[in-house]
Amino acid sequence: MTQLLLSMTLNKATETDTHTPDLFIGIDGGGSSCRAKVLSSDGSITGGGFSGRANPVHGLEKTIESIIDCSQKAIEDAGLESSAIRHITAGIGLAGVNLPSLYEKISRWQHPFKEMFLTTDLHIACLGAHAQQDGSVIIAGTGSCGISISGSKMFSYGAHGFPWGDQCSGAWFGLQAISVSLLAYDDLGPQTSLCDRVCDALNTNPLEIADKMSNQPSKEFAKLARLVFEEAKNGDAVAISVIEDGVGYLNKMARKIMSTSPGRLSLIGGLRSELLPWLASDVQDYLCDPIESPEGGAIYFAQSKSRQKANLAQSQCQ
Amino acid sequence: MTQLLLSMTLNKATETDTHTPDLFIGIDGGGSSCRAKVLSSDGSITGGGFSGRANPVHGLEKTIESIIDCSQKAIEDAGLESSAIRHITAGIGLAGVNLPSLYEKISRWQHPFKEMFLTTDLHIACLGAHAQQDGSVIIAGTGSCGISISGSKMFSYGAHGFPWGDQCSGAWFGLQAISVSLLAYDDLGPQTSLCDRVCDALNTNPLEIADKMSNQPSKEFAKLARLVFEEAKNGDAVAISVIEDGVGYLNKMARKIMSTSPGRLSLIGGLRSELLPWLASDVQDYLCDPIESPEGGAIYFAQSKSRQKANLAQSQCQ
Repeated sequence: MTQLLLSMTLNKATETDTHTPDLFIGIDGGGSSCRAKVLSSDGSITGGGFSGRANPVHGLEKTIESIIDCSQKAIEDAGLESSAIRHITAGIGLAGVNLPSLYEKISRWQHPFKEMFLTTDLHIACLGAHAQQDGSVIIAGTGSCGISISGSKMFSYGAHGFPWGDQCSGAWFGLQAISVSLLAYDDLGPQTSLCDRVCDALNTNPLEIADKMSNQPSKEFAKLARLVFEEAKNGDAVAISVIEDGVGYLNKMARKIMSTSPGRLSLIGGLRSELLPWLASDVQDYLCDPIESPEGGAIYFAQSKSRQKANLAQSQCQ
Repeated sequence: MTQLLLSMTLNKATETDTHTPDLFIGIDGGGSSCRAKVLSSDGSITGGGFSGRANPVHGLEKTIESIIDCSQKAIEDAGLESSAIRHITAGIGLAGVNLPSLYEKISRWQHPFKEMFLTTDLHIACLGAHAQQDGSVIIAGTGSCGISISGSKMFSYGAHGFPWGDQCSGAWFGLQAISVSLLAYDDLGPQTSLCDRVCDALNTNPLEIADKMSNQPSKEFAKLARLVFEEAKNGDAVAISVIEDGVGYLNKMARKIMSTSPGRLSLIGGLRSELLPWLASDVQDYLCDPIESPEGGAIYFAQSKSRQKANLAQSQCQ
């Protein structure tokens, strides 16, 4: 497990508008999509937006494009002019910014917001799941990882990336589906119905899978994950074995968190409902439902950092 | 196992020079390097060249640059002028050209040779190992695969690419080394001395491995393979388990070849000497030493295709 910095602050000095309630936007950017939520301090204004992937591991330009795109959609959905973006304080949680080089890249962005507070997608997911209280989350979506917040400390588990890490994530299941299919095709592994399913999904044959998947981002592998769960339900022994292998990793992570960071623990992410019935019973029994979305957590983060900054400014004036 | 086309011919009409013996160049291009050998039909002229990687999966431009570079080195080493390239018949075996799109890309190249005959690196390796006779090879270098030639038929095993295939290859060992190191670092897998060795080799810490390895070609993963064998010799149980896992795949492939394509079988590639002592005894006992190098096999290929073409032309004239 890894102790992380709890927050990273990037400020932009702009004029403040005292005639409207404070506006916040929470943004959750990951390997497959980016979601935004606008909320005013009095709760009178709300709006949501959705756009494409925003993982800087796969390109800074696309990440920023997705952040701007889903922000504008959420601002429009909230009934605001697009120019309102410069009056909004943003909390942004992004996959990949635990890596120093990617954090540096995003930090150099000349963002359009009033102010921007940057952290990881894991941090905002955890803040959202437990409504800012201490607790832990395991995320299994395109990637996989765990995070615990305890007071001023934050610990992460996994979050090392694909294909060497991210066990039991969508991308990992997709990679395993391809791997076992090719072993079966070569008669060097047990036969599996996944072989036909993977070829159908990729509209190709086993010999051309490599051609289709070379240099593809993790998101493209994650699209195949559902096939593993479908074929496991159909009784395919190889698909069941792949899930048991992945879930074994998730059980270990959950038990590690349960022993080192007791408190609320939630499983979130795109594979949540598929994975829940496969988890060990002690882990299933321990899990709590998440309270708020990750983008809601990003708003909590922006509000908290804004308050801290205001308090700091006030104490310096006294 | 997959039945493949035995050869692919790409011709270029140029003038022929009748004053010198026929010149041939054999080229073996893979994920880590490219080797060339020049040989005249009377054996009086020989030369060798070496250059960087030539796997079109990782870029056509670099592949062609490496082919030209090692060709010029071999031509110079043979004591010929660089302009002699247009009088040389080339046999080229490349990784990746079993994929239709990559074969098409290389086939569109306006090559500088008198004539070019293109096939896979596997095919020329097999021709070389058994001096053009029927037989099989298992290649474990940056990638891994098997190939059998029987009369006019050629069958391949594996050769599906990294990271979903290429089990027991250098790149696969490197990927496993990173994966088990990160599991150990998170205390979600058994402790292993590989963790420190991998971090030292990459000059980084576990949290920044992903940053170092993102978007790296298979060659960079393959550089870590030697660490697994070194730590296994030092008694590290995780390293031993990784090797046993990889070698299990190679034993299966060898036994498949031994049963379906009985005859000479050689293990070749950069990991040959490391892997040999780990193979099952029945497989070790069956293996023969290779007779010629893959680039030597590429010359056999070029000579054979040239003869076939001359015979065809002669029969059409009659």
